[in-house]
Amino acid sequence: MGNIVYIATSLDGYIACKDGSIDWLNEAGDRSPEGEDYGYAHFMVDIDALVMGRSTFEQVLTFGEWPYGSKPVVVLSSTLKNLPAHLPPTVSLSAEEPLRLVQRLSSAGFHHLYIDGGQTIQGFLAAGLINEITITVIPVLLGSGRPLFGMLASDVQLDLICSRAFKSGFVQSHYRVLSPLIPSAAGAEYHPEGDR
Amino acid sequence: MGNIVYIATSLDGYIACKDGSIDWLNEAGDRSPEGEDYGYAHFMVDIDALVMGRSTFEQVLTFGEWPYGSKPVVVLSSTLKNLPAHLPPTVSLSAEEPLRLVQRLSSAGFHHLYIDGGQTIQGFLAAGLINEITITVIPVLLGSGRPLFGMLASDVQLDLICSRAFKSGFVQSHYRVLSPLIPSAAGAEYHPEGDR
Repeated sequence: MGNIVYIATSLDGYIACKDGSIDWLNEAGDRSPEGEDYGYAHFMVDIDALVMGRSTFEQVLTFGEWPYGSKPVVVLSSTLKNLPAHLPPTVSLSAEEPLRLVQRLSSAGFHHLYIDGGQTIQGFLAAGLINEITITVIPVLLGSGRPLFGMLASDVQLDLICSRAFKSGFVQSHYRVLSPLIPSAAGAEYHPEGDR
Repeated sequence: MGNIVYIATSLDGYIACKDGSIDWLNEAGDRSPEGEDYGYAHFMVDIDALVMGRSTFEQVLTFGEWPYGSKPVVVLSSTLKNLPAHLPPTVSLSAEEPLRLVQRLSSAGFHHLYIDGGQTIQGFLAAGLINEITITVIPVLLGSGRPLFGMLASDVQLDLICSRAFKSGFVQSHYRVLSPLIPSAAGAEYHPEGDR
């Protein structure tokens, strides 16, 4: 556990179309067996809080009902000034850098963070702040869109924890990131570059 | 069968570094159990001929010994004028368009083609000329490099045939392309857009 990515991509690595649409994902989901949630509910049990970018947040708002109940959600944005009034008080806005945010949430007792949204995930990965990644690959090629992954200063090695294929053709693989900046053990010491 | 892609990528979808290097792949291979070929020999048994781009061909030349024996290999290039003299006569150069090449090879009795190299695969996919794709995902993020997939005029739907995880952490998934331009049955009729 620690900071975790749990996300679906096309086989060519996109999490959304260029305009942010995830119709292709919803259509794939509609072809899934009734009640199949691909481990999502089980995964969410151990999550203390969510961190998501503005784009993902706006996508979530289109779902209608707020899907995260009273679980704390931090929306990362440098432009948003207010959140819609109907959201629960557990939703907050932040413009913090990833490391500072993780440190603050850890101090508040939130050790297992679900990191969501392409740019947010890329920022956390580049900062060495992702501990685990579960990717569910949907059997479709989009050809273009918003990629899950981005630039990195150096290669990131991973350990495969497990992988499984579903009847729908989705392939879900669960990886541990080797040598992240912050170890995944709750309350572990921090070793940011500047503090050594 | 039909026209087949069989390739390894990083988790972020690259088949080589920007300079064409596949050191990261060789290093991952070196960590594989002795004798593990990830199904390659089995896959090659049914292949009638290989089609590869110039970049992949030049990579293969660095291996030293020519690895394809007397299996026909077509090197696609619009710039190469000659092949090294030490190569077997089963290696040939071509600047044909994918459809024309596939038709010519089919007429010559070569129905199961191994399509290799990023640009070549992208060209064949965009032309609707890929029937199956086997991707072996290596547990590493490169951050940049030469991507396996490229632009497409429209989504390409796939069917997962099977997926398996190896002890090395490699995840290999085998897909059938739905609605390719040319059905995979050997000798099937062609239905190129212009001929309907």
